[in-house]
Amino acid sequence: MNIRVGILGYGNVGKGVEKAVLENKDMTLVAIFTRRDVSQIESNTKVVNIKNILDYKDKIDVLVICHGSAFDMPNDTPLYAKYFNVIDSFDTHSKIYEHFNNVDESSKSNNKVALISCGWDPGLFSINRLMSECIVPNGDTYTFWGPGVRQGHSDALRNIKGVKKAIQYTIPIEENVNKIRNGERIKLTPREKHLRECYVVVEDDSLKERIENEIKTMPNYFDEYNTIVNFITEEEFDKNHNKMPHGGFVIRVSDDEVIEYSLKLNSNPNFTGLILTSYIYAVYRLFNENNYGAKSVFDIPISYLTNKTKEKLLKEYL
Amino acid sequence: MNIRVGILGYGNVGKGVEKAVLENKDMTLVAIFTRRDVSQIESNTKVVNIKNILDYKDKIDVLVICHGSAFDMPNDTPLYAKYFNVIDSFDTHSKIYEHFNNVDESSKSNNKVALISCGWDPGLFSINRLMSECIVPNGDTYTFWGPGVRQGHSDALRNIKGVKKAIQYTIPIEENVNKIRNGERIKLTPREKHLRECYVVVEDDSLKERIENEIKTMPNYFDEYNTIVNFITEEEFDKNHNKMPHGGFVIRVSDDEVIEYSLKLNSNPNFTGLILTSYIYAVYRLFNENNYGAKSVFDIPISYLTNKTKEKLLKEYL
Repeated sequence: MNIRVGILGYGNVGKGVEKAVLENKDMTLVAIFTRRDVSQIESNTKVVNIKNILDYKDKIDVLVICHGSAFDMPNDTPLYAKYFNVIDSFDTHSKIYEHFNNVDESSKSNNKVALISCGWDPGLFSINRLMSECIVPNGDTYTFWGPGVRQGHSDALRNIKGVKKAIQYTIPIEENVNKIRNGERIKLTPREKHLRECYVVVEDDSLKERIENEIKTMPNYFDEYNTIVNFITEEEFDKNHNKMPHGGFVIRVSDDEVIEYSLKLNSNPNFTGLILTSYIYAVYRLFNENNYGAKSVFDIPISYLTNKTKEKLLKEYL
Repeated sequence: MNIRVGILGYGNVGKGVEKAVLENKDMTLVAIFTRRDVSQIESNTKVVNIKNILDYKDKIDVLVICHGSAFDMPNDTPLYAKYFNVIDSFDTHSKIYEHFNNVDESSKSNNKVALISCGWDPGLFSINRLMSECIVPNGDTYTFWGPGVRQGHSDALRNIKGVKKAIQYTIPIEENVNKIRNGERIKLTPREKHLRECYVVVEDDSLKERIENEIKTMPNYFDEYNTIVNFITEEEFDKNHNKMPHGGFVIRVSDDEVIEYSLKLNSNPNFTGLILTSYIYAVYRLFNENNYGAKSVFDIPISYLTNKTKEKLLKEYL
């Protein structure tokens, strides 16, 4: 098996996919496509300007779209699904249905397969939310995220005037997590589920009070949570806060069952890259079965994530 | 939607399926089929002697086979898959492949669907073992069972001469579980993974020493483990050891990820009943798609476990 893979977008997730595909002996990484100046990209993979992407129409089996969810994917995935089998990790939960329908139309009418919203949330966590509710209909499901870096909230901090560098960690409130793990079906407000801890480097010490107040009262992002603001030096920031750890858990609780799925990740984008890469197998297989159109992780049997034979799966994994 | 369900075998798992199907508004429980004297079965469901099961050939959409794995299912599932769409929870891991092939032949040649080995292990744990390895190829997978009652080992205790009542609990060794949860990829012997704790009622106190020795040295069952034997009174046994709790966890560990799926169950057979019931949807749907033959949980997309619309799944669960 040799699946020819392309990557569109070379940010953190694109780099994660590159790493995972290069380690996969069933796949060949054909090219990375970028909007940036090709000469500025450091990679051993072939880097191609996005304006030439259609030259690769017949040279790539699956294109992994690694642009941002907020502005790029809503346009990019329907567009490129006309020419390629694609996967994206679109994660704006409220717009997934609309995105799915857009992608379905363009992929189906061009006999292509398009898997959307494939990552860990949406993705693996979604599978666990749905599956545990199907099995245990009378219960409550809780999703916690972290401890880990939340990109959107870190950006919000960096947009505050006088902030030089900043990062935000989402931390599940352990006391309440443990109650749920012990089978209590409690109702929790956002404040009771997660704590927000910020590490901030300021341009001038005199700004600290104003900045701390601005953070803690920021609507949607921080005002509904208990927020801890730590001011640190730039040196400490660069040394201790240059990673992107993440994780979380989905817990289903009923009177008689506690089902939990949990992740602890050293690198959020690298793990997303690994998930996308395993689903490349599925997209390739669906295409070969002429099963075109948009798909979500709910539509994909687990056996489609691998090249292992049915015999091996039944003997070694079931 | 109204799926007509039959249950073959009215032991603990059969009762679990009955409970789950009766609570499911998309399903009707048509009958329980038994080898026992029909008049001796206490249930509000219609109870039918197994010799009349073929009268129900066109009155049942999915038959759930709840006979034992060791002796009955190897014959029963291929036999009844000729006449019904079936599900079983066949759990003899070493014979799954052979069982699958037998069932595949009889179901396929009769245009029926047959899902085998559907429970939590094999079943949900298998899905998690396979899925986490597909996503994280470079890592180690650990499966722990318990704390919970192990039926086979309890039976082995009861077969010892002089034992009146007995139960065995399998207990994961927490110290080693925690090492793995913290990312250590250690090699563990059976003794380092699980402890076996037995509660035994003897016919005569003078037999204790011999029985304890016989238990601890029993090949395969106990000799490879640290085993604790507690002799208790029949009164205490009946009061405190009449439940079938179980659970366990599947952990995948790599240098950068820890993925864990865990279950805590008050009733092992009731939970198996819930799983079987959710997969009834899948068997029914595969049959309506003319997708005949034997299947495992690896072949079933999660969206097949429910009657919810695609719109609802994408909007509320993804």
